[in-house]
Amino acid sequence: MAVKIGLVGTGTVGGGCIDIILAHQADFKKHYGIDIELARVCSLDRSESDAHGVGDRFTDNFNDIINDPDIDIVIELIGGTTFARTVVTNALSAGKHVVTANKALMATYGEEIMDLAKKNGREILFEASVGGGIPIIDPLKHSLIANEISTVMGIVNGTTNYMLTRMVETGMSYDDALKEAQDLGYAEFDPSADVDGHDAAAKIAILASIAFNSRVTIDDVYTEGIRNLTPTDIDAAADMGYAVKLLAIGNRTANGIDVRVHPTMIPVKHQLANVNGVMNAIYVIGDAVGETMFFGAGAGSGPAASAVMGDVLEMARHIQMGTGPLVGCTCTDDLPIMPIDEIETKYYIRFTVKDRPGVLASVARVFADNGVSLYSVVQRGQAGAEEVDLLYVTHEAKEKAIRTALAYIQELPDVLLKEPSLIRVED
Amino acid sequence: MAVKIGLVGTGTVGGGCIDIILAHQADFKKHYGIDIELARVCSLDRSESDAHGVGDRFTDNFNDIINDPDIDIVIELIGGTTFARTVVTNALSAGKHVVTANKALMATYGEEIMDLAKKNGREILFEASVGGGIPIIDPLKHSLIANEISTVMGIVNGTTNYMLTRMVETGMSYDDALKEAQDLGYAEFDPSADVDGHDAAAKIAILASIAFNSRVTIDDVYTEGIRNLTPTDIDAAADMGYAVKLLAIGNRTANGIDVRVHPTMIPVKHQLANVNGVMNAIYVIGDAVGETMFFGAGAGSGPAASAVMGDVLEMARHIQMGTGPLVGCTCTDDLPIMPIDEIETKYYIRFTVKDRPGVLASVARVFADNGVSLYSVVQRGQAGAEEVDLLYVTHEAKEKAIRTALAYIQELPDVLLKEPSLIRVED
Repeated sequence: MAVKIGLVGTGTVGGGCIDIILAHQADFKKHYGIDIELARVCSLDRSESDAHGVGDRFTDNFNDIINDPDIDIVIELIGGTTFARTVVTNALSAGKHVVTANKALMATYGEEIMDLAKKNGREILFEASVGGGIPIIDPLKHSLIANEISTVMGIVNGTTNYMLTRMVETGMSYDDALKEAQDLGYAEFDPSADVDGHDAAAKIAILASIAFNSRVTIDDVYTEGIRNLTPTDIDAAADMGYAVKLLAIGNRTANGIDVRVHPTMIPVKHQLANVNGVMNAIYVIGDAVGETMFFGAGAGSGPAASAVMGDVLEMARHIQMGTGPLVGCTCTDDLPIMPIDEIETKYYIRFTVKDRPGVLASVARVFADNGVSLYSVVQRGQAGAEEVDLLYVTHEAKEKAIRTALAYIQELPDVLLKEPSLIRVED
Repeated sequence: MAVKIGLVGTGTVGGGCIDIILAHQADFKKHYGIDIELARVCSLDRSESDAHGVGDRFTDNFNDIINDPDIDIVIELIGGTTFARTVVTNALSAGKHVVTANKALMATYGEEIMDLAKKNGREILFEASVGGGIPIIDPLKHSLIANEISTVMGIVNGTTNYMLTRMVETGMSYDDALKEAQDLGYAEFDPSADVDGHDAAAKIAILASIAFNSRVTIDDVYTEGIRNLTPTDIDAAADMGYAVKLLAIGNRTANGIDVRVHPTMIPVKHQLANVNGVMNAIYVIGDAVGETMFFGAGAGSGPAASAVMGDVLEMARHIQMGTGPLVGCTCTDDLPIMPIDEIETKYYIRFTVKDRPGVLASVARVFADNGVSLYSVVQRGQAGAEEVDLLYVTHEAKEKAIRTALAYIQELPDVLLKEPSLIRVED
């Protein structure tokens, strides 16, 4: 008997899932012996459902799915953490297996949801919540489990990666890049979730939880977006052989989990530096496997639906074989989160100062007094101008020492740009 | 009760597996509830076993593993297709599950082995047979199954990729690159399996079988190696914006499966063009997911052991849960293999000719007479030299037309280099 699917949410991803089921149902049975049937589709917009040929399977009441004893798997594609949370928790409580693409939900209420799934003996899968169609959660939960993962990091937000790619290629400003991304439909009218790094923060919380076997929530992630990036800094990065990317970074350290999202300079030779436009990529370092990278489209109807339907088919396979959930919550450890003050990395810092004797010396003294050792200093000015840029790259230093130094430098009389540019550098 | 492992072969990969088990056994239990135990290790070399702390688990008779009723999983890491075939088939017949890293075995006797596993209700996994530690077989069998895959292609031989990288970087010859690779231990004394493309052919046979749901064996793969590549051609490629890589290519076409291994020019902007040194990467295009790529170390003790142990742990998980093999043979279709004559692609061709009037015209006429349309022609010569190079790039053409044209051109009186350089171009 076919495994019956109830789908909630008929937007971009939901529509893609419906299309895949209706087009490839027979292939799944022929190639893999997996027999699925789209039983019910819930949406607030009947026209969306009709556009994908849902027909009589339509309902506008999600309880028609939750209360249908024949439905085995619920796909939640509403997004957000309020109504989606109700759908997911009610579905699990009603004994349904659940597939979701909802990063915010999993990064915020992951523990509650995993616990509820376990209590009910049901499976919850969420491959599409990170990296769109890129298989990354499944490899971390299966292929790579012989490894102790030390780093998981990546470009997990296509909107900002598109903007940064355009800023690098054309020298355009942040504002112009945002406008272009909005015109192309890559960025929302309110772009905050993307450009302020919250979307990436949710994704790295999910990846870090799995990679390090310890719960990381979105609130644990130190987050900086790309609003303050200037063409000057991107240009300076290129001169030094770096690309600027909004990286989501998770490191296992002796002092806990270092997890953060911020613009980062990476060497142009690094695999991640060549991930451009709306593409995503996740880089994983394990003690046995060494360096691996998973690359693909991070968003869009087809890619996200590929991931959702991969989960659905896997779940249907388990249901048909009568096996329980293969992998439940893997957060068996309870590692501390490392405060941002304690991280150690290299820093690019740019000040604008008055072009007067002694400025360079007094800035250098502040760095030295705080134990920050400099790797390079460049002074850039226009002939005859009264202001010059000072560009510093430090050796590895503690974030706390850098912040203390910056606070002092900002008080120096000839420093004009009171909010200096600061970009962390990963080599 | 712990799932008991018998391991056959204590070379590089076998040693890596033993190290992982002995170091991380407790972690697997804690994080995933997977309880494995290394019960027996078979090797012809006791000192290798001793070096990894195998102790009393050592035997030099593989029947001690096959006949031990307590052993659940046999890991075959001998390589080759003779004794390894005996170990794998005997183990399956004795009711053991099997994990192997053996590409030649799976690409040659895959059907026999899959059938035997099915007959005995046992699982055979072989992630390490392609791409070392890179998860690629598992994603194709799980995460990506909602897709119809149209292309799977990649750099799956680290030795030749190292050599090509060095030839590009330094302009060195094939012979010098081979010598360097041999000195570094990347290439064997008899390098044929790598440089003639056989290793890559086995790997693309495996990938194509899974991606296209139809059996492809190593003999189905049209194979050319890198022996004839010259610095002149690599240099010409760079001038035109291409990198030269030994690609293993599988395409689903309306006329069957197009599967081949040969040096290929790819645009320097393509993700695969930036995969250098001994690294591997596999590129997959699916109808839903679009373009994805999986990157990592294609060989070595740790990476290969990561893949082998990922399979072992997954299998142990299934055994503990009492579930049968999740995925058996997926070759449910029977697609024809497309003859190499029928493929259509672009070609780079180089002749050396006497610098006389009329040569260019007569070569151009032969191409035209065979329906081959030219994209670009470059004549390269030294001032005063009597010989010049003619470099052609064609538009898409049938391989058969190209070969016919080349046969005619080789008979022209002023064509000196009787074996022209021919490199296929993928855009």
